[in-house]
Amino acid sequence: MRYAEPISRLIKTFSKLPGVGGKTASRLALFIMNSEREYVEELAASLIGVKDKVGLCSVCMTFSDNDPCHICSDTARDTSTVCVVGDYRDMVALEDVGSYRGTYHILHGLLAPLKGIGPEDIRIKELLTRIKTKGIKEVILATSFDAEGEATATYLTNALKPYGPKLTRIASGVPAGSYIEYMDCVTLGRAMEGRREV
Amino acid sequence: MRYAEPISRLIKTFSKLPGVGGKTASRLALFIMNSEREYVEELAASLIGVKDKVGLCSVCMTFSDNDPCHICSDTARDTSTVCVVGDYRDMVALEDVGSYRGTYHILHGLLAPLKGIGPEDIRIKELLTRIKTKGIKEVILATSFDAEGEATATYLTNALKPYGPKLTRIASGVPAGSYIEYMDCVTLGRAMEGRREV
Repeated sequence: MRYAEPISRLIKTFSKLPGVGGKTASRLALFIMNSEREYVEELAASLIGVKDKVGLCSVCMTFSDNDPCHICSDTARDTSTVCVVGDYRDMVALEDVGSYRGTYHILHGLLAPLKGIGPEDIRIKELLTRIKTKGIKEVILATSFDAEGEATATYLTNALKPYGPKLTRIASGVPAGSYIEYMDCVTLGRAMEGRREV
Repeated sequence: MRYAEPISRLIKTFSKLPGVGGKTASRLALFIMNSEREYVEELAASLIGVKDKVGLCSVCMTFSDNDPCHICSDTARDTSTVCVVGDYRDMVALEDVGSYRGTYHILHGLLAPLKGIGPEDIRIKELLTRIKTKGIKEVILATSFDAEGEATATYLTNALKPYGPKLTRIASGVPAGSYIEYMDCVTLGRAMEGRREV
């Protein structure tokens, strides 16, 4: 059917969101049409608000409305330890654990040669500068354990080694609550290899 | 983790959208933070655009940027036949078939006594007025075949009968491409009952 122009414009714009196809976009548009104007204005304002007020922390590259961000400016945190993650949500997941007291570095992507994403396309330069100039003692590589995350960890290991910080990689193994019998060979192999004395 | 205020505001607003929980909302917010400002402004503008420019067609109650809508004002369509649907997307689905040449009436909801939705809460009054005054010859009841859609069809049958239009209900039966063996009893019973000579 031919939608009214403002409706088809909204559907088209919604369908560019991740995980939103044509059907979901039209469902969302119908929801907007049925919503109170107040809610729609709040949604529009909060979208623009994020663009206006949120930038990157100049130290760790996280999204923040302050520079440095609340983690980098927290004097109770150990600024000589840097945990390197692929994106903002990885940092959020690690912060939710609550036990880590160091700082972060957000790469905003992972190396992916097949997609044309090289070291210049993610925030590696800023990490190198920080390590060269800020007396970083330990760099924890917390990129994901898929091909791109592993490639990025390997690249960073080679790139950072000359500057002397201790380099660590978070553990790979059997997740909490999982059964040995259902684990794949790579995971079990790593779990055996990474065993610790109890 | 404590999100920056503009980010948590956006996540909170996103999570009011249908089918969007906390995880999806934060994924969408991350996408917005990584998006070009141009896209975000377009999304905000198209949201407001729908609220500013789209209203209800005074004839059929559909969402439209013109009054009457493009269907009600199309002289090639049969205005004496009205197909009654629950919401806008039902109309879109029927229009996509392409064969119906009558007009519509959008109820914007279905009767649901358990949710406290009665005849005054949906656009039944407007349908009655239209039938009383516009010489409608046939009303096709195309509400869904769940409890609420059936209750609405039954209610409308009783309410409209005194005014004399021909009342029809779209067919219930085995959907295209489906196997008899997998159909439920109610569907098969209806398919038998509604059989037609070939």
